[in-house]
Amino acid sequence: MKPIVQCVPNFSEGRDRERIETIIEPLREQKGFTLVSYEPDPDYNRTVVTLIGDPEAMQKPLLKFVDRAVELIDMNQHKGEHPRMGAVDVMPFIPIRDIDMDACVELAHDMASRIADQFALPVFTYGEAARENKRKRLPNIRKGEFEGMHEKIQEEGWHPDYGQPSLHRTAGATAVGARLPLIAYNIDLKTEDMDIAKRLARAIRGSSGGFRHIQAGPVYLEERGHAQVTMNILNYQKNPIYRILETVRMEAARYGVEAPTSEVVGLLPREAVDRSLAYYYERDNRTWTADVPLEKTVEAARETLGFRDFDASKIIEYHIEEG
Amino acid sequence: MKPIVQCVPNFSEGRDRERIETIIEPLREQKGFTLVSYEPDPDYNRTVVTLIGDPEAMQKPLLKFVDRAVELIDMNQHKGEHPRMGAVDVMPFIPIRDIDMDACVELAHDMASRIADQFALPVFTYGEAARENKRKRLPNIRKGEFEGMHEKIQEEGWHPDYGQPSLHRTAGATAVGARLPLIAYNIDLKTEDMDIAKRLARAIRGSSGGFRHIQAGPVYLEERGHAQVTMNILNYQKNPIYRILETVRMEAARYGVEAPTSEVVGLLPREAVDRSLAYYYERDNRTWTADVPLEKTVEAARETLGFRDFDASKIIEYHIEEG
Repeated sequence: MKPIVQCVPNFSEGRDRERIETIIEPLREQKGFTLVSYEPDPDYNRTVVTLIGDPEAMQKPLLKFVDRAVELIDMNQHKGEHPRMGAVDVMPFIPIRDIDMDACVELAHDMASRIADQFALPVFTYGEAARENKRKRLPNIRKGEFEGMHEKIQEEGWHPDYGQPSLHRTAGATAVGARLPLIAYNIDLKTEDMDIAKRLARAIRGSSGGFRHIQAGPVYLEERGHAQVTMNILNYQKNPIYRILETVRMEAARYGVEAPTSEVVGLLPREAVDRSLAYYYERDNRTWTADVPLEKTVEAARETLGFRDFDASKIIEYHIEEG
Repeated sequence: MKPIVQCVPNFSEGRDRERIETIIEPLREQKGFTLVSYEPDPDYNRTVVTLIGDPEAMQKPLLKFVDRAVELIDMNQHKGEHPRMGAVDVMPFIPIRDIDMDACVELAHDMASRIADQFALPVFTYGEAARENKRKRLPNIRKGEFEGMHEKIQEEGWHPDYGQPSLHRTAGATAVGARLPLIAYNIDLKTEDMDIAKRLARAIRGSSGGFRHIQAGPVYLEERGHAQVTMNILNYQKNPIYRILETVRMEAARYGVEAPTSEVVGLLPREAVDRSLAYYYERDNRTWTADVPLEKTVEAARETLGFRDFDASKIIEYHIEEG
């Protein structure tokens, strides 16, 4: 079987629809991989692209995509809420099937070197592909952003891993990396009280002593009129979804607040759902069998985890073309 | 009000009752502090002493206690299961009331310097009193134990903080430190299955991705005939007891295992109990008032946390003489 990766490049344009389409175009309807989604965010002025499939098939289209982003985006004109340092800001490779992390690290270095060569762009490698500890976390690399990187990249400790130690005049710098799939997950709270959401986030997130692989904060959903604990699950094997959800439910009980529903933003691996279903089924003296049609898994996740706005297309495996 | 600390010196004799009594004797019936307990462990061949009270009043008696331990214990003859490097192996100071951590760090350095001077003992400062990160954790310092310390202490990176870089011929070396009160806490499982205890420990402990301030493992209680999750809670403010207990109960539910009771080994601060009582009371739409007779607190802890073999003397504040 061919290896399957997820690749999630982010580029610094989230407003000009025509320009976004032009940049995306080389990734459409290619053999061997699927353009699952691209989600422009006008406030961030940034678009997140999700590809799934054979990494070899992705290589040339990705380079064309970079080519267009470099041509069409001028970082000197760019404004947006999200921290950023380049036209193609970041490009992570994520192992999904029949490929391990080491191979994804290799993919990242290969891509980083090609991008640096072809576009005279300085490229940092991050995540599991980082060569130094301080380059593991993207925020460390990106600190200073495009405006501050002109100086930072000239410091010896911040020379790029590929390319020259000076920013591309209009396209800035790029980070290419490898990491585990992360799950963007939000738990709905039946309350408008942001103070409660704050306390719940603090109880579960690693930085305040909670679960190590959880980054979490409170957020208020204007349209829906309730608070939420919003989080990234950085390792769903060690911090499975059900454990986080049930801990939040347990904590929320002291405030008389229920947390009946939750939502996944973007995609998640089927295994992450199966792990949690196994918990609920075992708790109720049933047995969860992972080997069922995807639609059954989706239904069970809605019931037990309270996933709302959830369908099969949220699961990574749905997008893998067989054969 | 005078400051109150807890001091928990450990010395390397846990078998010879007469010798233990002689070493302990200077700590008995002193003004300003209480000898709460001393618990010899024959397997460990080690005794844990607990003092509570005014640190100034403790100073001279503690030095007499060290004097006797140095005189009576020969580490060249010592055998026991617990890692150790000296006759007085470790002496932590723990802030309880009207004293902060900084002041406890000062106490530790003052004591370390006196011990080194009076007994020609090399002394390391650890925990919050450590001068370097690698000396924070006791196991790092103690690695190699008495037998290996002869060489280790001569290495530049492992010179002691006080005294000469060579072991005392018979009394080895000592570590004096400052730390938060830690709670030794065990959750009873209604099962004999150690594999379940192992999984539950893994779900909650920091080293496998669980709560940051929890060290936990599985243990089988021969006499009682059931498994337990045994743990240290290193920070009960960030990882309160109820949260750990309820997470274990939630996880155990998938194995059909109940965890109705739990136990505290040694002492715990009243605040740690109050924090958890507040959770259960709020959850049940009641309000916990901390300002009640200690006996009420004890009763409520038995009910909600399932504390067994628990009475007021387990609470640090019980041992503080007022006035």
